[in-house]
Amino acid sequence: MTRVNFWNEFRLEKSLPGVRNVYPEGLHAPVVAHLRAQGFEVGAASLDEPEHGLSEAVLANTDVLLWWGHAAHGEVQDVIVDRVQQRVLAGMGLIVLHSGHFSKIFRRLMGTTCDLKWREIGEKERLWVVAPGHPITAGIDNYFEIPHEEMYGEFFDIPQPDETVFVSWFAGGEVFRSGVCYNRGKGRVFYFRPGHETLPTYYQPEVLRVIANAVVWAAPRPSATYRFGHFPQPIEKIG
Amino acid sequence: MTRVNFWNEFRLEKSLPGVRNVYPEGLHAPVVAHLRAQGFEVGAASLDEPEHGLSEAVLANTDVLLWWGHAAHGEVQDVIVDRVQQRVLAGMGLIVLHSGHFSKIFRRLMGTTCDLKWREIGEKERLWVVAPGHPITAGIDNYFEIPHEEMYGEFFDIPQPDETVFVSWFAGGEVFRSGVCYNRGKGRVFYFRPGHETLPTYYQPEVLRVIANAVVWAAPRPSATYRFGHFPQPIEKIG
Amino acid sequence: MTRVNFWNEFRLEKSLPGVRNVYPEGLHAPVVAHLRAQGFEVGAASLDEPEHGLSEAVLANTDVLLWWGHAAHGEVQDVIVDRVQQRVLAGMGLIVLHSGHFSKIFRRLMGTTCDLKWREIGEKERLWVVAPGHPITAGIDNYFEIPHEEMYGEFFDIPQPDETVFVSWFAGGEVFRSGVCYNRGKGRVFYFRPGHETLPTYYQPEVLRVIANAVVWAAPRPSATYRFGHFPQPIEKIG
Amino acid sequence: MTRVNFWNEFRLEKSLPGVRNVYPEGLHAPVVAHLRAQGFEVGAASLDEPEHGLSEAVLANTDVLLWWGHAAHGEVQDVIVDRVQQRVLAGMGLIVLHSGHFSKIFRRLMGTTCDLKWREIGEKERLWVVAPGHPITAGIDNYFEIPHEEMYGEFFDIPQPDETVFVSWFAGGEVFRSGVCYNRGKGRVFYFRPGHETLPTYYQPEVLRVIANAVVWAAPRPSATYRFGHFPQPIEKIG
Repeated sequence: MTRVNFWNEFRLEKSLPGVRNVYPEGLHAPVVAHLRAQGFEVGAASLDEPEHGLSEAVLANTDVLLWWGHAAHGEVQDVIVDRVQQRVLAGMGLIVLHSGHFSKIFRRLMGTTCDLKWREIGEKERLWVVAPGHPITAGIDNYFEIPHEEMYGEFFDIPQPDETVFVSWFAGGEVFRSGVCYNRGKGRVFYFRPGHETLPTYYQPEVLRVIANAVVWAAPRPSATYRFGHFPQPIEKIG
Repeated sequence: MTRVNFWNEFRLEKSLPGVRNVYPEGLHAPVVAHLRAQGFEVGAASLDEPEHGLSEAVLANTDVLLWWGHAAHGEVQDVIVDRVQQRVLAGMGLIVLHSGHFSKIFRRLMGTTCDLKWREIGEKERLWVVAPGHPITAGIDNYFEIPHEEMYGEFFDIPQPDETVFVSWFAGGEVFRSGVCYNRGKGRVFYFRPGHETLPTYYQPEVLRVIANAVVWAAPRPSATYRFGHFPQPIEKIG
Repeated sequence: MTRVNFWNEFRLEKSLPGVRNVYPEGLHAPVVAHLRAQGFEVGAASLDEPEHGLSEAVLANTDVLLWWGHAAHGEVQDVIVDRVQQRVLAGMGLIVLHSGHFSKIFRRLMGTTCDLKWREIGEKERLWVVAPGHPITAGIDNYFEIPHEEMYGEFFDIPQPDETVFVSWFAGGEVFRSGVCYNRGKGRVFYFRPGHETLPTYYQPEVLRVIANAVVWAAPRPSATYRFGHFPQPIEKIG
Repeated sequence: MTRVNFWNEFRLEKSLPGVRNVYPEGLHAPVVAHLRAQGFEVGAASLDEPEHGLSEAVLANTDVLLWWGHAAHGEVQDVIVDRVQQRVLAGMGLIVLHSGHFSKIFRRLMGTTCDLKWREIGEKERLWVVAPGHPITAGIDNYFEIPHEEMYGEFFDIPQPDETVFVSWFAGGEVFRSGVCYNRGKGRVFYFRPGHETLPTYYQPEVLRVIANAVVWAAPRPSATYRFGHFPQPIEKIG
């Protein structure tokens, strides 16, 4: 059974009534509940726990890590970022949500600024499927809408994705590559744009479905072994 | 000097007053004039000429071929499509415009249906740059608008592009990968979406600029040689 | 249960003793046997059957099609190639083996010549994993060797792969991208290089394992729907 | 005129006679001389200079930076790595050579370990062109050989390249993706494998030619502008 862990910064729910009202138990809560209902084993971790809740032991038992952060990216310790990066490269799946685009771990794995345009007026977002054969799109009917969301607009400073799955249309006039896949080492990374903290996005069935699909896609699977380092003997006789 | 050839189906300008009024000398005319003003050597060819104007001699003297067709894709002879394909694979650039997405040559080079959604109500299109380091975007300021265009919407059934340069926002609610690059053999292919025949799109400066940039990008350049076929002698002694 | 069909040209086994001796029941036979032993439902089809054994009914019941051809690519009817292409774009997996690089269906889906260098002296091939997280590599230990194979060398005239999984080293001095993945429409395509008809390649466990892995990878899976064609009504009110 | 800067760690030439004998003026010297002869404006910088020779002013006047390091990656200050990364994302070209695969700047831009296999017995390397239309291959005849080189073997832990240009064959039995291109932000990055410090690789004409081609390819060129940050006003009127 795939073991999922949702890392939520979990600060804004405590400091801002406008967030707490929407997500009284944390914005991870509806996602965790949905994934459990789908049969996944799901834990949660957050910034203010020791080691941000991401001890070696926790990560060793995590197949897919979800990441939501916004106000305190800078407080995430580099040693934990190193640890998560190593686990991803060794095969753990990583799903980065919304404002996690600016997290240390996402910028670390991308190598770019991950910067973008944004606007917070609760406009309509429509996510179009541009890779309808991709398993992350299972059950989606060519597009789905989120009635009110924060806008993220291009240029989104990321490496060219290995696969682009969703492109968003915003009522205010922008577009955004809102679902993008990367292979990094043996791990799979999915960035999924929706999820502003004052809006009920993580209760919406299509959003939950995409996240659950992404968990399945990102989970480690049997694959090849590899070698690094010094191999002084040639395989072939030279000469 | 880069030698350009604009292949225009050139039927609708003759049969439909609504097209002829906008493009009295053919919809290729403003593009040809602009490219000439930029210093390119530019010819034109069309469907009803012998060999559709694309004899071996013409193609041998073409560095970059532009292609616009719509109503008569089926009348293009397969032998000419073969010829153009071979020239592209040998290094000629190809720029496919608008309804050329359904041309034999584009579908041949893509291997897919190249199908899409469409709507013809003259809505606003806004083309966003999603690869701001790409030379095809030179001189463009993060986006540009076309006040009235035909809509093309996703899913656009093309292979994942080698580079996606523009993504369009449409007032009616759709998005579209409207500028996409491919390498095929030694040739470069650029598909550029705008250009409905009843609208003055090909007079718009940004559109002309992108096409001129694409000609520069797609032009053949010095590169490696390669070998195909039977090489019975190994390079290395075996055994 | 994934339904597999192995299309084998199946001529050389009849005309050449050197082939028949190695594969008395056809070179598809050991692959078919292995896949059945793995629990797949597996059929076989060949060139000299009516419709080359690929009727609409057969294809409608095929999840993944394997393709081996060499001496008679030109005899495959275009109508059957059209049919297979449409099925792939609609989601059927396709695994093209060895000399199938020159088959009509592979060239159709690639849009390029698919040409290469070759040499037939039975030299050693070593296939290196360059994407160790890819499920097609499951169970492979960083590389595997085929003691005697035909050589295929670069340049291999294919579009840049969506993922390159194996790169081959040949004793005679060449390299080759010998396992490459493509998405085309909703379908997945895997080209796998090994399999010369006079050599016992298709009895080798690693080769069989890769093919079985590729069947799992290429099988259709739930994904999004899409729309093509005329949608005269905008989704959003314009004005 | 393109302004090039070769950053060489420049320690081994001083500490190891075996290196100094081959490159008495530093291993950058023959590359610098060749690029100057080609008409580029070329400077050099090294680890033990203040700010490693990469002040803001120097980088502001650098179009393409070459990078060779091996024994002292850890001594490169993070503030300088940050600075180089920002310049690359803003459009400066970067060419990373040989053991620079483990430099902080390359790992920063890739997001992966950039680890690999290696062996130092001076075996033959043959670099095959797998993208013969790429301008970095200009003047190369399908492959070239380096008589004696250090071996680097797969798995090379890098993101899937935006374009793979060279694949190496090694006499000892390995293969390696030895020339790979990336777009990062507005900048272009080329990793080129050859260049062991005790071998005269950087005197070889084909190696010099590839590096000169890469400088041309990586140089910044006119392209689009972009916006980041808060844009509170929608472009379109909403509602």
